[in-house]
Amino acid sequence: MKQFHRRSVLSGLLAGSAGLAWPCGGIAADLDAALRVDAGRLRQNIEDFSMFGRKPGGSFADGVSRFAYSDADIAGRKFAMNLLHAAGAEPRIDAAGNILARREGSRPDLKPIMIGSHIDSVPDGGNFDGVLGSMSAIEVLRTLNENRFKLRHPLEIALWSNEEGGLIGSGAAGGVVKPEILGVTLNGIRRIDGVRRIGGDPDHLVAAHLEPNSRAAYVELHIEQSGRLEKTGTAIAIVDGIVAIDEYEVEIIGFANHAGTTPMADRHNALLAAAKLIEAVQEEITREPGWQVGNVGHLEVYPNVRNIVPGRVFHTLELRDLDAAKVKMIGDRIIARSKTIATDTGTEIHIKLVEREPAAISSPALQQKIADAAKSIGLATMHLPSGATHDGTMLTSIAPIGMIFVPSVAGISHSPKELTSWTDCANGANVLLQTVLRLDRD
Amino acid sequence: MKQFHRRSVLSGLLAGSAGLAWPCGGIAADLDAALRVDAGRLRQNIEDFSMFGRKPGGSFADGVSRFAYSDADIAGRKFAMNLLHAAGAEPRIDAAGNILARREGSRPDLKPIMIGSHIDSVPDGGNFDGVLGSMSAIEVLRTLNENRFKLRHPLEIALWSNEEGGLIGSGAAGGVVKPEILGVTLNGIRRIDGVRRIGGDPDHLVAAHLEPNSRAAYVELHIEQSGRLEKTGTAIAIVDGIVAIDEYEVEIIGFANHAGTTPMADRHNALLAAAKLIEAVQEEITREPGWQVGNVGHLEVYPNVRNIVPGRVFHTLELRDLDAAKVKMIGDRIIARSKTIATDTGTEIHIKLVEREPAAISSPALQQKIADAAKSIGLATMHLPSGATHDGTMLTSIAPIGMIFVPSVAGISHSPKELTSWTDCANGANVLLQTVLRLDRD
Repeated sequence: MKQFHRRSVLSGLLAGSAGLAWPCGGIAADLDAALRVDAGRLRQNIEDFSMFGRKPGGSFADGVSRFAYSDADIAGRKFAMNLLHAAGAEPRIDAAGNILARREGSRPDLKPIMIGSHIDSVPDGGNFDGVLGSMSAIEVLRTLNENRFKLRHPLEIALWSNEEGGLIGSGAAGGVVKPEILGVTLNGIRRIDGVRRIGGDPDHLVAAHLEPNSRAAYVELHIEQSGRLEKTGTAIAIVDGIVAIDEYEVEIIGFANHAGTTPMADRHNALLAAAKLIEAVQEEITREPGWQVGNVGHLEVYPNVRNIVPGRVFHTLELRDLDAAKVKMIGDRIIARSKTIATDTGTEIHIKLVEREPAAISSPALQQKIADAAKSIGLATMHLPSGATHDGTMLTSIAPIGMIFVPSVAGISHSPKELTSWTDCANGANVLLQTVLRLDRD
Repeated sequence: MKQFHRRSVLSGLLAGSAGLAWPCGGIAADLDAALRVDAGRLRQNIEDFSMFGRKPGGSFADGVSRFAYSDADIAGRKFAMNLLHAAGAEPRIDAAGNILARREGSRPDLKPIMIGSHIDSVPDGGNFDGVLGSMSAIEVLRTLNENRFKLRHPLEIALWSNEEGGLIGSGAAGGVVKPEILGVTLNGIRRIDGVRRIGGDPDHLVAAHLEPNSRAAYVELHIEQSGRLEKTGTAIAIVDGIVAIDEYEVEIIGFANHAGTTPMADRHNALLAAAKLIEAVQEEITREPGWQVGNVGHLEVYPNVRNIVPGRVFHTLELRDLDAAKVKMIGDRIIARSKTIATDTGTEIHIKLVEREPAAISSPALQQKIADAAKSIGLATMHLPSGATHDGTMLTSIAPIGMIFVPSVAGISHSPKELTSWTDCANGANVLLQTVLRLDRD
């Protein structure tokens, strides 16, 4: 590691900060195609990173709790800044707490190519979600610098702050985040205090806003969270886009009464109504083929007492698909079903749309670059939607976006069981590198 | 009130504590039948009692939070003890914190007739549940003493401690409560500390155990909680018995995963399984006619996050009917249904019987006495099961039990909306009084 460190800092100074231009046209196409990241170093960095948020006495397999703004997040950010330094960059922290680093290109008139991901985790999360993309972006930078490989475009590394807790960093960069959401407390930390803790300036969040269409591309490598890549034995997914999401809140009002004495026919059982609605949600989502999914993930019963007929239920409902019209249609069908259920159970059902997140469609040209990059390395590919949101969702006004997915065993994510083979990690980083090289040729 | 007070204490001293016997055979049957409680005083006592546990600035309509062992409970107990004193009795507190008062009879060889109820409430409860029976029992005592009405049997008033939080006082009296349950904390108070707070001796709970078959009868007046009395316009219900209850705990184990990325077909959704099971519970209970009821009242979802497929659900299930065999059969049918649901949803469903409470059947002879008492007052009656448990459940080894119900508007209970008309309150107290007189003749 130390040897690499010295070498890379030197390379960085030479190729990056010192601004030495690679002689134009001096690189043969077959040399570009042969360029690879250091797979061992990438693995080492991911393993090292798993220390931040690991429980005392735990191992790599125990995953991490490194939610945004926590001590673990702050320690991880420091480590990532050191890695960027070692890779030859001078990272800065913007008003939203994003870590940004820029490597100059030979053509100042060209827009930067941006790559990155996030390093915060959900509580009790895994070692790969976000970290793989972040460490790979740093590794791409370091590989370019070590090889004194000059790009025409500037290259920007972005480690977005607080992805898991609401895409706050990328949202600020995309000009999407409204200042009032900084008042919200999550995992015990108010966002405004959190942004300040990590060196941001929440009072001037707008300073983090990047100019529309100011980047040539934003590309992110991430683990694939549906299990489809692993199931089909495919190395790389080219992401068609990030799904549209409709978020609803459902309140069911019945009447709480004694569960021993109230005749069944006289009950206004809010939980029975919720049960029927949850089944209706399942039926409406699975009624026709497609990638569409939906979830009732959070549910609360009131008064939630063994011997009292539930008088009120609150639950969430979310629906996702790449096709926003389909998402809306399924929501409408569920609302229609709820009216019958309310009548049948003697309850009131209120379904309120609380958020409508549009789909973020990947740029077709960028998808082609990723496909070419994978092909050049000899990796099989397939196209998939991303059912999960990612920072790219927030960045569509800034740049055409693209995503590269690598297999995660059984599609598990947001769990200590998250696992991507080191070979797949290296494959992903190399596709990212080769994609950057192809984008640079444009 | 003050006038009554002086008179009643005097009467009590004369008829009760001073042990003056009413001349045997000196009471004509038509005089017995004419004896009535003071309806105005009963109402006043119920209204006065609503102060204990009322929220600051609230009114009678706001109900009470007077859960066992709370400051409100302790204040209410003191008030009840004063009422007993005023009624001419010398109350004592047993090891379980029950308030007991005894009025001697003319025949020391006869077993006491016991009447009573409880004065604790559920959090955010009403003014009548327990209080009506308690105030009426005290009113019966006071009426007898004011009228220097000598009974052959001793008369015992029992105000059972902590009915709502687990029938603790009556359970100790019936020898049913095991000392280990005193370690449980409910509403922020550990039972063992609570029993001590109200003047009991939790270390010697066994001292509260009454001898088997030591009482001639236990009769309790209570509000009717199903709404059937009010709906049919019937003044009095003669209770056939208190239902058998089977309590189950249900654990459904699925797999928590990302709700955006996990294909619908690959989910192991514990909440979807719970929804199907809740519907199955409803179907199995309502499949055939009868009084049987059941409830899923408490339900918890894990991790209970909007965008995570529920990985685990815990919920309660209780089933009730006067016929214990029917209760068991419905439980068995639900367990059979759960196996199909588990297979269909890719989950494991574990249903564990955690408590089997037998039915407490009212004594037929006592039911007849209640019917005769109501008839003597000219009140219409009907027979009903009690779907709720009451202290009588715990006392079947001590005495034949019987219960008198009066209408509660819409059957509402365990709610500030609990409401019984003052006429119905007085009717109930008079039926209780007349039942005592009839029991005394045996």
